[in-house]
Amino acid sequence: MRDYPQHYCGLFGIFGHPEAAELTKCGLFALQHRGQESAGIVTCHEGQFYDRREMGLVAQVFQPEHMTTLQGDTAVGHTRYSTTGSSRTDNAQPIIVDGIRGKIAIAHNGNLTNAVQIRDQLEAKGSIFQTTVDSEVILHLLSQPPHQNDLVQALRHVEGAFSLIIMTPKELIGVRDPHGFRPLSLGRLKDAYVLASETCAFDLIQAEFVRDVKPGEIVVIDRQGLRSIDAFPLHQRRSLCIFEFVYFARPDSNLSGRNVYETRVAMGRQLAREHPIDADVIVPIPDSGNPAALGYSLESQIPFQMAFVRNHYVGRSFLQPSQFIRDFNVRIKLNLIPELVRGKRVIAVDDSIVRGTTSRTRVNNLKEAGAKEVHMLVSCPPHKHPCAYGIDFPDPSKLLAAKWNRQQICEFLKADSLAYLSMEGMLQATGLNPDSFCTACYDGNYPVACSPADKHYMETQRQETLSLLNQDQPLPWRAAGTENGVKREPGASGG
Amino acid sequence: MRDYPQHYCGLFGIFGHPEAAELTKCGLFALQHRGQESAGIVTCHEGQFYDRREMGLVAQVFQPEHMTTLQGDTAVGHTRYSTTGSSRTDNAQPIIVDGIRGKIAIAHNGNLTNAVQIRDQLEAKGSIFQTTVDSEVILHLLSQPPHQNDLVQALRHVEGAFSLIIMTPKELIGVRDPHGFRPLSLGRLKDAYVLASETCAFDLIQAEFVRDVKPGEIVVIDRQGLRSIDAFPLHQRRSLCIFEFVYFARPDSNLSGRNVYETRVAMGRQLAREHPIDADVIVPIPDSGNPAALGYSLESQIPFQMAFVRNHYVGRSFLQPSQFIRDFNVRIKLNLIPELVRGKRVIAVDDSIVRGTTSRTRVNNLKEAGAKEVHMLVSCPPHKHPCAYGIDFPDPSKLLAAKWNRQQICEFLKADSLAYLSMEGMLQATGLNPDSFCTACYDGNYPVACSPADKHYMETQRQETLSLLNQDQPLPWRAAGTENGVKREPGASGG
Amino acid sequence: MRDYPQHYCGLFGIFGHPEAAELTKCGLFALQHRGQESAGIVTCHEGQFYDRREMGLVAQVFQPEHMTTLQGDTAVGHTRYSTTGSSRTDNAQPIIVDGIRGKIAIAHNGNLTNAVQIRDQLEAKGSIFQTTVDSEVILHLLSQPPHQNDLVQALRHVEGAFSLIIMTPKELIGVRDPHGFRPLSLGRLKDAYVLASETCAFDLIQAEFVRDVKPGEIVVIDRQGLRSIDAFPLHQRRSLCIFEFVYFARPDSNLSGRNVYETRVAMGRQLAREHPIDADVIVPIPDSGNPAALGYSLESQIPFQMAFVRNHYVGRSFLQPSQFIRDFNVRIKLNLIPELVRGKRVIAVDDSIVRGTTSRTRVNNLKEAGAKEVHMLVSCPPHKHPCAYGIDFPDPSKLLAAKWNRQQICEFLKADSLAYLSMEGMLQATGLNPDSFCTACYDGNYPVACSPADKHYMETQRQETLSLLNQDQPLPWRAAGTENGVKREPGASGG
Amino acid sequence: MRDYPQHYCGLFGIFGHPEAAELTKCGLFALQHRGQESAGIVTCHEGQFYDRREMGLVAQVFQPEHMTTLQGDTAVGHTRYSTTGSSRTDNAQPIIVDGIRGKIAIAHNGNLTNAVQIRDQLEAKGSIFQTTVDSEVILHLLSQPPHQNDLVQALRHVEGAFSLIIMTPKELIGVRDPHGFRPLSLGRLKDAYVLASETCAFDLIQAEFVRDVKPGEIVVIDRQGLRSIDAFPLHQRRSLCIFEFVYFARPDSNLSGRNVYETRVAMGRQLAREHPIDADVIVPIPDSGNPAALGYSLESQIPFQMAFVRNHYVGRSFLQPSQFIRDFNVRIKLNLIPELVRGKRVIAVDDSIVRGTTSRTRVNNLKEAGAKEVHMLVSCPPHKHPCAYGIDFPDPSKLLAAKWNRQQICEFLKADSLAYLSMEGMLQATGLNPDSFCTACYDGNYPVACSPADKHYMETQRQETLSLLNQDQPLPWRAAGTENGVKREPGASGG
Repeated sequence: MRDYPQHYCGLFGIFGHPEAAELTKCGLFALQHRGQESAGIVTCHEGQFYDRREMGLVAQVFQPEHMTTLQGDTAVGHTRYSTTGSSRTDNAQPIIVDGIRGKIAIAHNGNLTNAVQIRDQLEAKGSIFQTTVDSEVILHLLSQPPHQNDLVQALRHVEGAFSLIIMTPKELIGVRDPHGFRPLSLGRLKDAYVLASETCAFDLIQAEFVRDVKPGEIVVIDRQGLRSIDAFPLHQRRSLCIFEFVYFARPDSNLSGRNVYETRVAMGRQLAREHPIDADVIVPIPDSGNPAALGYSLESQIPFQMAFVRNHYVGRSFLQPSQFIRDFNVRIKLNLIPELVRGKRVIAVDDSIVRGTTSRTRVNNLKEAGAKEVHMLVSCPPHKHPCAYGIDFPDPSKLLAAKWNRQQICEFLKADSLAYLSMEGMLQATGLNPDSFCTACYDGNYPVACSPADKHYMETQRQETLSLLNQDQPLPWRAAGTENGVKREPGASGG
Repeated sequence: MRDYPQHYCGLFGIFGHPEAAELTKCGLFALQHRGQESAGIVTCHEGQFYDRREMGLVAQVFQPEHMTTLQGDTAVGHTRYSTTGSSRTDNAQPIIVDGIRGKIAIAHNGNLTNAVQIRDQLEAKGSIFQTTVDSEVILHLLSQPPHQNDLVQALRHVEGAFSLIIMTPKELIGVRDPHGFRPLSLGRLKDAYVLASETCAFDLIQAEFVRDVKPGEIVVIDRQGLRSIDAFPLHQRRSLCIFEFVYFARPDSNLSGRNVYETRVAMGRQLAREHPIDADVIVPIPDSGNPAALGYSLESQIPFQMAFVRNHYVGRSFLQPSQFIRDFNVRIKLNLIPELVRGKRVIAVDDSIVRGTTSRTRVNNLKEAGAKEVHMLVSCPPHKHPCAYGIDFPDPSKLLAAKWNRQQICEFLKADSLAYLSMEGMLQATGLNPDSFCTACYDGNYPVACSPADKHYMETQRQETLSLLNQDQPLPWRAAGTENGVKREPGASGG
Repeated sequence: MRDYPQHYCGLFGIFGHPEAAELTKCGLFALQHRGQESAGIVTCHEGQFYDRREMGLVAQVFQPEHMTTLQGDTAVGHTRYSTTGSSRTDNAQPIIVDGIRGKIAIAHNGNLTNAVQIRDQLEAKGSIFQTTVDSEVILHLLSQPPHQNDLVQALRHVEGAFSLIIMTPKELIGVRDPHGFRPLSLGRLKDAYVLASETCAFDLIQAEFVRDVKPGEIVVIDRQGLRSIDAFPLHQRRSLCIFEFVYFARPDSNLSGRNVYETRVAMGRQLAREHPIDADVIVPIPDSGNPAALGYSLESQIPFQMAFVRNHYVGRSFLQPSQFIRDFNVRIKLNLIPELVRGKRVIAVDDSIVRGTTSRTRVNNLKEAGAKEVHMLVSCPPHKHPCAYGIDFPDPSKLLAAKWNRQQICEFLKADSLAYLSMEGMLQATGLNPDSFCTACYDGNYPVACSPADKHYMETQRQETLSLLNQDQPLPWRAAGTENGVKREPGASGG
Repeated sequence: MRDYPQHYCGLFGIFGHPEAAELTKCGLFALQHRGQESAGIVTCHEGQFYDRREMGLVAQVFQPEHMTTLQGDTAVGHTRYSTTGSSRTDNAQPIIVDGIRGKIAIAHNGNLTNAVQIRDQLEAKGSIFQTTVDSEVILHLLSQPPHQNDLVQALRHVEGAFSLIIMTPKELIGVRDPHGFRPLSLGRLKDAYVLASETCAFDLIQAEFVRDVKPGEIVVIDRQGLRSIDAFPLHQRRSLCIFEFVYFARPDSNLSGRNVYETRVAMGRQLAREHPIDADVIVPIPDSGNPAALGYSLESQIPFQMAFVRNHYVGRSFLQPSQFIRDFNVRIKLNLIPELVRGKRVIAVDDSIVRGTTSRTRVNNLKEAGAKEVHMLVSCPPHKHPCAYGIDFPDPSKLLAAKWNRQQICEFLKADSLAYLSMEGMLQATGLNPDSFCTACYDGNYPVACSPADKHYMETQRQETLSLLNQDQPLPWRAAGTENGVKREPGASGG
């Protein structure tokens, strides 16, 4: 459990099921961990689109009265933690536009690394934008010459991470960028095709897993069936985000055929082999540290104890009371059982350390409860670099490992020792080809060139343009041929 | 009080006042009668736009927590009854887009008669649309070559009725179409300029009325003051909607320098001169029939009695109970005091008859209460034609006077007699040049050529395009150069 | 339109109709002017009670999902402006209790003058109270010896103003105190009996008016029919609140067989006879001044003009903007049309002046708009005394006429002249026996002895008791026979 | 995780802290697992009470605007799952009444076994009741002769389970019934005393645990400090509910000095000693089965795997979709990771089996995922009897073990084997005196005589009384001495 915004986006789509909207609601619910800020569903019935997109959790946004309006047997849904685009209803996805081909809805997981450049080019040619979501540029590219209607050519213009689900009046389309940064899987529910960010969404609706959408693949589903297009044949590199295995994906999902929970247990076992410590008890930091801690326990035979108790009723609405309660936000989520650690040598296992403030609190909780020693073990290497592909890490100035070495971090945490899983150990625990991952946040090796990863970059960039406009001399509207008609009246605001 | 949707749109804008958002909220509140479906405010602070746009009444939509986010000294607001564009939050105005010049917000009152044609052209060139509001085409025209940034040239492409308030990071712009179908007035509040659909909005915020924006005029307000552009110098015809005087505008507003209440009283006086009737009491149909009934009473010296009592607590949320209460919706708004009409010869005065169902109920109420005679007088001529410029009259099949003559209508209403004010009488009562009005709904004389006026036309037209797409053969996405990569899988939904 | 809380309570009950709850909702809606603070309905189905009681307007409180739970063919409803009892949901009526006879619900309009004394006696004997509504004492009296189950004897203990509707599992009971301060009428809707505070509630549901419940009468409605009990045979005085005619009741209601609107017109005519003034125009203060102004106009032949325009969208939720708008609350409700009064001698007619602040504003509005003279005429005598029977007049220190003479009030209002209708004129205009009214607020002649009328008296009195408890020495709980078991631990709060 | 309503009530009180309401909100939040139906806080400031009591979760009920009204340095709070009293706002606790001593607020955890009898007696003497909460009888007893003000004597009349917090204008009082069925602990936060149902509430607000309130003890906290009264000196039996250890209490709470989590681990260890099984993996049923499963694993050295993944976003508002998803409600909470159990011999550990439907689903989940064997182990004995003291077990007809023997239950669950922890093993695992517990739900040995435990009994009993009233002949109100005044009118409803 870390102290940074934790999730980003979940996608779900279904084609050819009479309960399309209800199933999409369920699918988004299973993917809620990938985005809690807003949720949206767009359905298609006889060529018409119906939608609901609002701020809030899935269960709040889709009330029975909304579901009845979401007609049709095809749907696309989105849960969102904003990666680009600020937190506003207008930015709730899926985005819907209307153009020469009719309506198009698009849902996006990932981060386009050249969205700002494309937007600047499009605006120069006269395009206008109604959101600050980076995927809006894809809709323009799809609608304009020269690639009007040519999905493949249009998509070849964008770079970075993009798992997409696109809905048209006749098709449901799944797209995964050639590096395959973000997951996207294909399933079936009777005659219907289903697309989802993670396989756990299939389990809830009892759909059958078919296969992952491949990096660089486009799947087009229509009444004739499914066509697969190998859209980026020249790209070679496979770069699934390793952090999906470490933290993001739900433990009951499978990525590239590997179960996430089992992979995390394997990381914990590997951690025990790399960093054996003589201790009395293993304590996971709930809930994300559970499997790795269990793995360490299984490998080391040191007892595992769930000493931190989670309060399940924590929601957005519980506000900080006045300042008299120290560390309120930290206490309200987890309470420690002192009896389990008093006088003991404790190994605390977490999946990662980013800012370190929460970890320091946990070490402090354990020490205050009487732990004799606290050894902090982390089931991945140190995070030293921001993510350019959709995960909202803080900028390097706040990334603990970007500033300090292990010894310094250990002192900051006030732990008795600190150890990280090695890069090799992490990759090996997946059981997959170690070359098939993006590990940029650990080693700075970015598969796609990128400008500084700032989720507000698009807005910031616009802001700079606007600043130029705020100079002393405004850019007056041209009023060709009408200057004779212009009269001035006294200035407002003493202008 | 008639039985068709009654209002359309209200506009308000202010430039250069530290309380811009609060004043806009007040201004919209004064204009609430022009649209109760949704409300929106966009403000500008240091080049950034802040907005709130929601379904609902002004007092509901803008809660204190929303107002604090609406920073800046410039604002534009809109209350809306949809004329084009269905009733959805996405269509709530003002619309905001971002393009080469930065952000633009636009609020529109009226109806563009060539919006669909322009939209078709724009889409063919690759433009995409996110709303079904007709003013979205104006934003595209303003952003694209050849008229990028040339407000006047861009506006010359659109036809029909458009009073607009446009906000950019540096300017507030008021526009009135060359015919001046819809009102737009200019005021001042200390150093700030104010624009509003009706002068009653100035009264509430104690702004000073300066003058009407002239038909065909563009006023550009910035830190240097106000520039007036005569944008359509070749247009001559002046066509203020006469129905604003008859019914729409608030009685305390002034249009073209004439007070609306006084004009309605004058219409009632004229009605008495044209149709003198020997009766015992004049009863207005509240509230819109009050001034004309008073005028008739003043001219005829027959006593005026407010025999219909209005329930002030009627809101949207009071639903029809089960069917056991006859005429519930009619009774819940107005209750008749039988003592005032029993055994009397009654003149009932209403401002207009459109569908006639409400009028028939009122005549029936009076007869049931014991009125000896009921003479229905209407303070305008018969409505025979739909409006192409923003008023949501029903289509001709439901316009009573489009189907029937006066005698037939009188029989339908079960009244003892029925009379309408003459066209000449109505125009003369305004005290203005009779040639300066649009009277198309009475005489079919449309100042601007128009396709059939259907507020859902834009959506309908799109629907037809989509129907074409729903033929047996889909339009497949081109996938140039990638056909080698296409593989087919078994069909969904039985293919 | 006055500047003090304007309404108090509305009652509605129905026995023997399958749509009892829906009809009660409609009835309360028609009585909404009698109380906008909270609303409640209790129904009875097979001996079980079902209820909904909440703060808010009728249309807000009773949503469709609530109506479905309100089963049964018998119902009692209440709209409330608190007269005693603070503004809390717990005090929302009808109150429901359970005792030896089963459940009882009670709804009360009026003010008991000896509630505090009875409560003190009951508490001394061990009764406990859960509300600060004065009618709770009636429920105790009905449940305890010696008057357990003896409705008449129990009611003879309470004094003051009480129109009541009581529901038991088998009966609906209407009660009107022997003076008949507050109205209560009996109607029928097919086989069902209906009780309502005002006859306008019958009109909305199309029930037939049968007769008024008589002062001192109890009507008991059950499956056998209706029994009438003359419960206070020795009481003689009839004291219907004259202010119901002047202001409170809806104009379309009939009280004691007289129509309220017509009575108000008659008051205006009488005012014209008593105070003829040479003027150009009569302007009512909307809406309550309309009928009297019309009456003055009919009598004097001076034209009547509705120069103040009311904004129909004013609700509770529109909050005062920052201080920059002078008189905002006054302006938001009414806007003046200056054209109608400019340069004219104006007679402004209102139904009453209590605090005078609103009247002063209206005079000022007229003067600012250019009225040459403003004569304020009031269609009742000066208010000099508080009401002890349920109307929430301010205490005498804020009653204008309790402090000042007519000349001083006229100066305060800045009017050119001021005149009130005489007591005799007011009573005569009703057409009823002048001895049948309570006129205490005008002449201080209180029909029932009363302590100072303070709606917070019951709460205040309790507060004083509590203050005694807050002395240095607490009243320790007795702990008979257990003192041996008492141990003391160190004090809290350093006590 | 079982399929019956799981919780009952949580209490919190604080005396002498300036942030009393905020701390109470936090305390209730920590006790949310004891009741999710409604929440209430009452505070006292200078003798006045302030309250908020609503249906909903703590975080929803207490918004910032409510907290500001809850003034004072003393507060009592309650979270509730109804044990007696139906689910209505009127029944939200704490109950507040006003009587001879001033205001009293009371919050109750437990179930009075003689509430109906006392209520019948009180009603016969004339008391009236406004709720169906059993603790309302205590308030009457406290207010009436002969025990007016004698807390101890009054409390000696009630029987059953009652942990109470009572607030008066001067005192905060904690009461625990002589058997001590429900927990209640005393803490300190600086100078303030704190009372709470469980010690985990102290941890969140960083209060110091002082001691448990003893069975039969009354603690009276006022400005002078704390007095302890041994109120039931003749009672001997100590009967803490063993199910608090097994399931109800939070694992981080301590009961009678023993940590709950550790006790559950000890139960799991004992289970392993009593029922050793040769298996490959231990799978807990989350979340309540976790500690016992871990204990079994620690004792048996068989690996522990959290194969059921919990969805943390499950709330009240997620409604069942249409019927096409089998077992939706079961799947939405937990998803199984098949990789962890496929081909394995699985031990599933749950804390208890009541109805058995959920357990059967879990066994089925494991089998469908490919488990070779599924052995269901339960960390307490079979539940055969209802609870009379506040836990909402189903009636015996739905208690699996009341109907069937172990073999039959095992067949119902379709498990390969089924074993329960022995009574002795369970009690021994607590480390406390085995005679100090109530074990009635296992062995039918009820410490206090009780009528059939039905949470709706009070309402049902009332209903029967009402049925009597619904006979053909109503009980007419007596109307002594007024029969002369009675007149009958025609019957309603054809009566």
